[in-house]
Amino acid sequence: MRTSIATVSVSGTLTEKLNAVARAGFDGVEIFENDLLGSSLAPEQIRERASDLGLELFLYQPMRDVEGLSADAFARSMRRAEHKFRVMRRLGVDTVLACSNVSAHARDDDALAAAQLRELAVLADEYGIRVAYEALAWGRHVNTYDRAWRIVEAADHPALGVCLDSFHVLARGSDPEGFAAIPGEKIFFVQLADAPLMGMDVLQWSRHHRLFPGQGDFDLTEFVRSVVRSGYDGPLSLEVFNDVFRQAESGSTAVDARRSLTALQEAAGVLELPAAVAPTGIAFAELVTMDTEPVTVLLQALGFSRTGKHRFKPVDLWEQGTARVLVNTEPATGGSGPRLAALGLDSPDPGAAAKRAESLGAPVLPRRRARTDVLLETVAAPDGTELFFCASGRQDLPDWLDDFAAAGDAVSQAGSITGIDHVALTQPWHQYDEALLFYRSVIGLRPHGGVDVSDPYGLRRSRAVSNQDDSVRIALSIDPAPGASHRASQHIALATDDIVAAARRIGAAGHLLPVPDNYYDDLGARYVLGPGELQTYRALGILYDRDGRGSQFRHFYTRTIGDVFFEVVQRDSGYAGFGEQSAHVRLTAQHAQRQA
Amino acid sequence: MRTSIATVSVSGTLTEKLNAVARAGFDGVEIFENDLLGSSLAPEQIRERASDLGLELFLYQPMRDVEGLSADAFARSMRRAEHKFRVMRRLGVDTVLACSNVSAHARDDDALAAAQLRELAVLADEYGIRVAYEALAWGRHVNTYDRAWRIVEAADHPALGVCLDSFHVLARGSDPEGFAAIPGEKIFFVQLADAPLMGMDVLQWSRHHRLFPGQGDFDLTEFVRSVVRSGYDGPLSLEVFNDVFRQAESGSTAVDARRSLTALQEAAGVLELPAAVAPTGIAFAELVTMDTEPVTVLLQALGFSRTGKHRFKPVDLWEQGTARVLVNTEPATGGSGPRLAALGLDSPDPGAAAKRAESLGAPVLPRRRARTDVLLETVAAPDGTELFFCASGRQDLPDWLDDFAAAGDAVSQAGSITGIDHVALTQPWHQYDEALLFYRSVIGLRPHGGVDVSDPYGLRRSRAVSNQDDSVRIALSIDPAPGASHRASQHIALATDDIVAAARRIGAAGHLLPVPDNYYDDLGARYVLGPGELQTYRALGILYDRDGRGSQFRHFYTRTIGDVFFEVVQRDSGYAGFGEQSAHVRLTAQHAQRQA
Repeated sequence: MRTSIATVSVSGTLTEKLNAVARAGFDGVEIFENDLLGSSLAPEQIRERASDLGLELFLYQPMRDVEGLSADAFARSMRRAEHKFRVMRRLGVDTVLACSNVSAHARDDDALAAAQLRELAVLADEYGIRVAYEALAWGRHVNTYDRAWRIVEAADHPALGVCLDSFHVLARGSDPEGFAAIPGEKIFFVQLADAPLMGMDVLQWSRHHRLFPGQGDFDLTEFVRSVVRSGYDGPLSLEVFNDVFRQAESGSTAVDARRSLTALQEAAGVLELPAAVAPTGIAFAELVTMDTEPVTVLLQALGFSRTGKHRFKPVDLWEQGTARVLVNTEPATGGSGPRLAALGLDSPDPGAAAKRAESLGAPVLPRRRARTDVLLETVAAPDGTELFFCASGRQDLPDWLDDFAAAGDAVSQAGSITGIDHVALTQPWHQYDEALLFYRSVIGLRPHGGVDVSDPYGLRRSRAVSNQDDSVRIALSIDPAPGASHRASQHIALATDDIVAAARRIGAAGHLLPVPDNYYDDLGARYVLGPGELQTYRALGILYDRDGRGSQFRHFYTRTIGDVFFEVVQRDSGYAGFGEQSAHVRLTAQHAQRQA
Repeated sequence: MRTSIATVSVSGTLTEKLNAVARAGFDGVEIFENDLLGSSLAPEQIRERASDLGLELFLYQPMRDVEGLSADAFARSMRRAEHKFRVMRRLGVDTVLACSNVSAHARDDDALAAAQLRELAVLADEYGIRVAYEALAWGRHVNTYDRAWRIVEAADHPALGVCLDSFHVLARGSDPEGFAAIPGEKIFFVQLADAPLMGMDVLQWSRHHRLFPGQGDFDLTEFVRSVVRSGYDGPLSLEVFNDVFRQAESGSTAVDARRSLTALQEAAGVLELPAAVAPTGIAFAELVTMDTEPVTVLLQALGFSRTGKHRFKPVDLWEQGTARVLVNTEPATGGSGPRLAALGLDSPDPGAAAKRAESLGAPVLPRRRARTDVLLETVAAPDGTELFFCASGRQDLPDWLDDFAAAGDAVSQAGSITGIDHVALTQPWHQYDEALLFYRSVIGLRPHGGVDVSDPYGLRRSRAVSNQDDSVRIALSIDPAPGASHRASQHIALATDDIVAAARRIGAAGHLLPVPDNYYDDLGARYVLGPGELQTYRALGILYDRDGRGSQFRHFYTRTIGDVFFEVVQRDSGYAGFGEQSAHVRLTAQHAQRQA
């Protein structure tokens, strides 16, 4: 099916919007009237610009309060409608959206509404235009799609049909099953928006909290299936606005939007994509820094050994257990302090994983390794983190490790790191929802439930994604301070089988984040721990959590170097969380460290 | 009454919070448990720090899920409670907040709840501690204050009372009148928070949308009156959190909080302040710039003449009608492009106005004029704009104009400016609510209704404040892009009696913001205008609005210089708005101009 997006859904001038939408690969747009009125281009120039960009203009919107009117008001409404029809002719748009009346003066009279809509359709028809009537969820009298359809049916004019908007339908709790009662050719347009379930005033909900499909709680897959079953074959169009993404750059919003629509079409069975290839492990985490000293000191303290040296580049490989950390000092990578720049993901089929990513508009990066290197398929996550798909355990594919010459041996000791438990990536404010959709649809990870974590600067929304056996876990959180002076830190959580030995070994040299005594006083009141256990945790700075079934999670943090820090965790097999209960303690300690 | 605030209401570490709260002049705080757990200070050190700052520790909070429990769960709860009591002794806090149970396991049994709360109170009493039981609005079974009180009454222990929180009471629609049934000495604590009326899930509402008193829609004045009538004489404590202000600097949040509480006490009749002295006019607007050329060119084009020159400082006075603009090139004022740095407000009693400001914690600025200058009382608005209180029409007080030596005469011509219609100040994201409270409580202006205006970057909340006869109008709006690359512009709207002549005169030299043709096509469809009227507006770039009663508002904008631009308006006397209908056209044109 053809894909479309309303110009109101991205930021900027109309020209910027059209450019961004075209680059993201949409087939066309809905023109939002305010975007036209604010544009210095004449309608004919907009039509030409869209055509040059390969964009169809599917819909002009909105017309408001056109039915259920007094004779006077209806005459004024028709006058303005005729003007819009003329503008639409100049634009070359043949469908207009008419929203159900929200005015307190609207009459509760379906026969009157039908008669007036019919008159509007007769006029539209003279201009070769079709009117798509939509029930707003907060329409004064007409606020459900079935009532809108009954009125359209009664009006009985070929230039009059309905527009189905998933937000308005699902926010009212209506059942899309009922679309079956509407002949496909009478559905003139379909608009899609998701939203979190919020139980709030529906107008405010719509205005501030719409999301792209797959980023909220509505069942849009069933919505699209119902629309398709009815015989509708027009475009699927996104109409989304909220307080966050319109402040983002138009290009990245359009890419996010296009991805959500592609993933939705796949889910609804109207589009086939290369299958998702979920990663099977974290091959490596790559730190970039101009100064290797702080990171070398910390990796050594954590027990890592430098086991390899890249044959052609200033990249070192550090290993311990199955955990691998690359330290890259290539000048081109910019910035000074260490930051987490890339993740290697073990993939059963890197080529297929990259094809999947490409089909969902993920930027497949120029392979930046040298010509002599092992080829690595690479995509960029929304926050710019590079994801390498690495062949693992495949004899037929080259191994990225072959690029490294041996430089030393890993050693095993008490409290050794066994591997990477998870990676935590703080997302910029306006890219959190986009990141969740990316990791789910492009990378094939499944989202866990969301939690709010308190932070010295407010609440921090947080949600993890993982593969089936949890061997790849990525914890995403939103930076609570959009205008913060500090850059958000990322962290790498390392697994151990003996947290106490690990803390003893690593903590000795003062590498760890201090944990306040008050935390331990409280911990002793919350849980009955074994003899000496609390004292040990207190002495070593280990944090403790236990879930409802008694599974434990014990962990500690290193201090932050540059924009990155490490966590060491010992996780009971049943424990599914990330120690969120004590996140506020960690965040406050880090805040205090920044101030110091 | 003593004033208090919960530490959760400001950002930072516990020490930062205590400092900010003390500086803002609160008598004490509620200690939020997470703030204690995250602090590296021992409870005794916190007690000492608070005492050094002159802060009392009024309350420790919260205890959760303490009643309606199984025997097992209750035993665990008592164990943890005893620990808290010990910590409270170390802190020197004698009241603890216990919230009603929210767990799905909670039993719906008031007798059980009363018995368990009584046992808790007996234990608390041994530590010299009182338990204040609060009905959370989303409590599983106990979610109204009257039910909480019935349980407390049944438990009948001197160490057990209720806590009344305005959010929980008013969000449930309960009537504070009923407080009369509770003996004052059984009200152990009172928490205050305002909120916008939203009709959403009450937990999310509480977590993300609380506001300081006077910034939302709740009737807190009546709430406080009811509390006082019951005989309560404990502290009034703010417990507020939302998505915005905790990201602000702790100091300014605490000042805003303290001001809201002072204004609320005044409204409730428990505190007398110097009376508000509303301004009677805008005496001047002051622009600061290092380069006078662009502003000189624009002021001349607008028809202003340089009529005065400050006797001791590099400040010029420009006049037209009653509109006065100061242009200040003092190097100390910083920045380069012109920006709107100050407003002069005609005041019937500048000294009293300054006293009022001081009593509400508004920073009264060091009088920056030289010793030889006429004294001007000056306060800083939350966004840093300086407000001068100027004596006007008072023979007994010195006139600020005496500081200026005559430099020329104002001229009158067709389409002259008659005065300043309004000033529009874009507020930083986290200071919008604070600014509204400031102009209302400190300056004595009354707020109009709020509107949302669409912008290329999202919705822009906007609200005006004015004096009684609308001779002082300030339009406040919120910058929709917290991380925006561009600085928000402020503007000065000048009044004229002949908008067409004004536009002809000023527009000739290309000083005006261009308005798209599409706007005029639509305008002609919306209104039936007089013959030639639409053509005139189109040719001159005049925007047009008409309210429901037919009153007109016609206006145009200059291009932006630095961070400021001018608007010229002709307002029918009955028209109360600011042409919001076409704000999106102006904002889009300005966005396009920035991109160019």
